[in-house]
Amino acid sequence: MSDATAPDPIDRLIRKAAASPRVIGLGGGLPSEKQFPRKELAAAFVAALKRQGSPALQYGWPEGQEPLRVWIARRLRERGATVAADDVIITNGAQQAIALAAGLALRKGAPIAVEDASYPAALDLFRSRRLRLTSLSEGRAAYLMPAVNNPSGMALSSAARATLLARRVPLIEDDAYADLNFAGRESRPFLADAPDRTYHVGTMSKTLCPGLRVGWLVVPHSRRQRAVKTKQDVDLQANSLAQAVVDHYLSNHDFDARLRVLRRFYQRRAARLSEAVHKTLPNWTFDFPAGGFCLWIQTDAAVDEKRFLERAVAEGVSFDLGSTFLRHHDRREPNRLRLSFSYEDPTKFTEGVRRLARAWRWAVKSARAR
Amino acid sequence: MSDATAPDPIDRLIRKAAASPRVIGLGGGLPSEKQFPRKELAAAFVAALKRQGSPALQYGWPEGQEPLRVWIARRLRERGATVAADDVIITNGAQQAIALAAGLALRKGAPIAVEDASYPAALDLFRSRRLRLTSLSEGRAAYLMPAVNNPSGMALSSAARATLLARRVPLIEDDAYADLNFAGRESRPFLADAPDRTYHVGTMSKTLCPGLRVGWLVVPHSRRQRAVKTKQDVDLQANSLAQAVVDHYLSNHDFDARLRVLRRFYQRRAARLSEAVHKTLPNWTFDFPAGGFCLWIQTDAAVDEKRFLERAVAEGVSFDLGSTFLRHHDRREPNRLRLSFSYEDPTKFTEGVRRLARAWRWAVKSARAR
Repeated sequence: MSDATAPDPIDRLIRKAAASPRVIGLGGGLPSEKQFPRKELAAAFVAALKRQGSPALQYGWPEGQEPLRVWIARRLRERGATVAADDVIITNGAQQAIALAAGLALRKGAPIAVEDASYPAALDLFRSRRLRLTSLSEGRAAYLMPAVNNPSGMALSSAARATLLARRVPLIEDDAYADLNFAGRESRPFLADAPDRTYHVGTMSKTLCPGLRVGWLVVPHSRRQRAVKTKQDVDLQANSLAQAVVDHYLSNHDFDARLRVLRRFYQRRAARLSEAVHKTLPNWTFDFPAGGFCLWIQTDAAVDEKRFLERAVAEGVSFDLGSTFLRHHDRREPNRLRLSFSYEDPTKFTEGVRRLARAWRWAVKSARAR
Repeated sequence: MSDATAPDPIDRLIRKAAASPRVIGLGGGLPSEKQFPRKELAAAFVAALKRQGSPALQYGWPEGQEPLRVWIARRLRERGATVAADDVIITNGAQQAIALAAGLALRKGAPIAVEDASYPAALDLFRSRRLRLTSLSEGRAAYLMPAVNNPSGMALSSAARATLLARRVPLIEDDAYADLNFAGRESRPFLADAPDRTYHVGTMSKTLCPGLRVGWLVVPHSRRQRAVKTKQDVDLQANSLAQAVVDHYLSNHDFDARLRVLRRFYQRRAARLSEAVHKTLPNWTFDFPAGGFCLWIQTDAAVDEKRFLERAVAEGVSFDLGSTFLRHHDRREPNRLRLSFSYEDPTKFTEGVRRLARAWRWAVKSARAR
């Protein structure tokens, strides 16, 4: 991949690091390629092409293919929500679902509540749309990852949950990591408790593979026609091929068994990375995640995070800048950062954290010298 | 496909007609499934999955995969434009490229020039965004299909071309059917003559298959970073799998040979449908298209077009309502309609046009009776 088109120096650095086999990747939050079911997807593709009329290659309707919407609705019903297949719109990944929901739920310039730390591409989108980010106790709508937050890996507290339900504002519920709660707890979605104002976002990116770009959006009944029309306006429809492949895969494999494997797999990786951090950087603290792909680190010093990242990449390790996840970033506070255990070979975790520790010592020293 | 989610009665009718094997499909404008290279795409998929790191299944960068952008840039250079791979952004089909371009080129409420008849999903999008549709001699920007217009199948006149170049407004150039000019004429794109203000839109939907949702947008250099950021905001990136499949297909097959086959194929179908219409509905007029998928019909009476369509579907034939293509629709004018020769089995054209003629006679009679 070329990096000449990257919008800023940090983006260029991140791309360079991602492209280099020398750099141990603790940034990015990508799912493990070891868990991509390649053979099964190839078989699904071949089967999809044999179907009469080749719906996998032809145009489809803006709301997406029905069998997939039936499957999604059924799973949400199992978690307590009253959802029919017709309530589901297939999107080009979760990000498009968030973008559509934000457009439906809020006017430009309106305040939107987000968790103190949240998904950077959603925060970026809201800022681009000139929505004002507020705490969960304010805002005309809220964006949340209540089942498993990115970056913290934690569920929303029941107190915050109760407050949000009482406030009666539209809720954009990003459920991207819900199936990757390590204990296999199927949390009750906001969609079950506030169906008239919840925009529920889901995706196959974390549990199957992101390159398929299969996500979905469930909107309140009253917004359904508007949502389908908007989906048609922005790109006509989601990828027919990817929908057909996912549908065929789900019809022929035990997805719950797959989820059990993934949970154990990522939990083991979380434990290995945790151990390495505790041992090598004992002053850094974090809660062991309840699910997801990452550790959300609290450090004990305030350094220039971009220079820290540059140094880390020079040492041969990458991480994600804490500031990109924060609703409100104060440079005088001790840094935060996100470390991903999902993607990199775990036998490299110890060496990766050692390199990170060297870069951190350098960054702390530089900060003190100024 | 379910029709319960369709936004209005006409949409429900169109969906019902599309789902019924009894209805001869002269509406819709879909490419022929006979021309989908299924085996070749399946082989491309299997090959893509074997690549190290499975980029076909993993996240990618917002601008899309480089090999595909290299191919697109090269083809545009062959048509006279100065384009590098980094100028190209892969989109989720041409519609997303149009939506991104409209967002970059115009503010809400601004006037946008369009041809008298144009692509309905673009017109719908502009109306949703509250852009005001104007003739080509006005507007703060223009949206055009200069190589092969949909629905007319004709190229933009050189007079209109010169006027637009002289006006110096941003141009959204929709090149969707350019490769399907029957004579194989590779027209010079606006991108070659006005690169500083042309948003060039292309797609694989007409020449390979639409279900892959592989389109692209070339933006003026000065808008590039903003365009990539917006693409990231709306859905992170285009489908990795589809990009890998298309790239592999293009690397291993002669695309120009494919285009020659397609041109002959669609031209023959155009001739067969033209003949049927001339014979059975001699009062209807149209220019034989220079390319594309459709005939753009001028009728000789003003009828209620929705009731005409209902009657046609009851007779067992579908077509596309002329009003959806028109910048300005006057119900007192003789109706227009679009007939597609691209999708339906051509041995059904004669019978399809007979059914259409019965519905038309009924509609004209009903109009006179009121």
